[in-house]
Amino acid sequence: MNDLKMIEQALYAYVPSDYEYAKALTDSMSYSLEAGGKRIRPRLVLEFARLCGGDEKAALPFACALEMIHTFSLIHDDLPCMDDDDMRRGKPSNHKVFGEDIALLAGDALLSLAFEIASAPETVKNAGAEVCVRCVNILSAYCGATGMIGGQVIDLENENKIADLDSVTECNRKKTGALIKAACEMGCVCAGADKKQIAAARLFAENIGIAFQIVDDILDVTSTDEELGKPVGSDEENNKSTYVSLLGIEECKRRVDKLTGEAIEALELFNGDTSSLKELALSLSKRTN
Amino acid sequence: MNDLKMIEQALYAYVPSDYEYAKALTDSMSYSLEAGGKRIRPRLVLEFARLCGGDEKAALPFACALEMIHTFSLIHDDLPCMDDDDMRRGKPSNHKVFGEDIALLAGDALLSLAFEIASAPETVKNAGAEVCVRCVNILSAYCGATGMIGGQVIDLENENKIADLDSVTECNRKKTGALIKAACEMGCVCAGADKKQIAAARLFAENIGIAFQIVDDILDVTSTDEELGKPVGSDEENNKSTYVSLLGIEECKRRVDKLTGEAIEALELFNGDTSSLKELALSLSKRTN
Repeated sequence: MNDLKMIEQALYAYVPSDYEYAKALTDSMSYSLEAGGKRIRPRLVLEFARLCGGDEKAALPFACALEMIHTFSLIHDDLPCMDDDDMRRGKPSNHKVFGEDIALLAGDALLSLAFEIASAPETVKNAGAEVCVRCVNILSAYCGATGMIGGQVIDLENENKIADLDSVTECNRKKTGALIKAACEMGCVCAGADKKQIAAARLFAENIGIAFQIVDDILDVTSTDEELGKPVGSDEENNKSTYVSLLGIEECKRRVDKLTGEAIEALELFNGDTSSLKELALSLSKRTN
Repeated sequence: MNDLKMIEQALYAYVPSDYEYAKALTDSMSYSLEAGGKRIRPRLVLEFARLCGGDEKAALPFACALEMIHTFSLIHDDLPCMDDDDMRRGKPSNHKVFGEDIALLAGDALLSLAFEIASAPETVKNAGAEVCVRCVNILSAYCGATGMIGGQVIDLENENKIADLDSVTECNRKKTGALIKAACEMGCVCAGADKKQIAAARLFAENIGIAFQIVDDILDVTSTDEELGKPVGSDEENNKSTYVSLLGIEECKRRVDKLTGEAIEALELFNGDTSSLKELALSLSKRTN
């Protein structure tokens, strides 16, 4: 079974289906989990686990837990009090279908479920308590106030003001980068990797994380909304500073290539087959959506 | 140091204070954590840990983690898309002070922080990885879709319809009861309690949990808002079914006494000093706010 299929099958099965109450909640959780996406974060968990000689099966629950956290963040991000987005991945966003109250609670429940999966008896049996507790700590630290959620707040604070490159970079290192780092680091931890390997995985993650966000900023300016025939850039309304507004498109493209090269270089420390990770890094830098 | 002081001191110190960005977020988290409350749940963790011969210091992080989850639920509950409450414990609710976006994210960050605390290296050092991973599982399972959050959804579904006693009880067992159960169970787990002790703690929790909610429903009808001179019952607008509307006040009072008695009876299994737990159960049944 390929990774994507394995991840999605496990992911969907984790949503409680035997609870006779609160069906709207579990439907809402499944709706967003099943809305697709590239599954970059869980794939990175499995890739690094394999690269460090670990067991795929032991790593899979942590890959799913991370995707739960990513999905929770998208649901809350789309809410009217945040980005107020009606659409997500070509479908109505969660609160447009289930209402704001259920969407809010579905996000909360997905965040909680992530930790339930990472600490489940079955997970502990396969990965061991030490690995589970370290992965819970990685997930929560990179998700929380000094991780992804902190990044979202910096993003809010940068709205309607000219932010400098340091602040934009700090925002992106947290908002987008933190969960990518969590992915690479957890994969290593699942496989009992040593400190040097974990440091190399972090460096890889740090570089592709920033490259990922720069590509996002470029796409916001260069992509054209097919229906409206105008740039899709969601930040044009609030004049938020982005890599493109601060550096210009050409410099952005140069930086993406440089960061992707540095990410691939960081993989040299590993003895195993790094070809699919290299491919992933390159495909992210060249993506068009 | 008494329990309350110990809990609050540790609780406040867990909010990150050395992160130079996203100050609004950490201020907002601290605002709600420091807004007071009876701290029933963390106190129950410490009481049961001591009763089962465990170490207070090892149990304290889990007590704090549980209070973080309780606080997160209050912040999200007060949001306009939920109960839309402007006041909480005599102070403006979180979103009235920090805005809906920050309040949403502060709730998310507190939920995440709960798991970060329960899996922190310092916590693992004192309690061991096995206990930590079990406590993470208890916290997340009782918090999630089939726990407290599920209860909140049943509560939403019961609005504006006549719900039967089963449905109201299921709602309350989850919405209020789940975290109380988590408290008692975690206290036992921290102390390496056996299955019989855990079962007795659950029975105690189940009983005081329902009693707690019945008292809440009674107080909603009988308390008088000092300023307005009318009942404070927040459910009068939406005609939600409550224990009082389904059973009448006299039967409710009888049930509170019966449940409290059964809770106290469940404590007989323990050899240690249960006097303060008995006192707590009685004081909750007789509380006036």
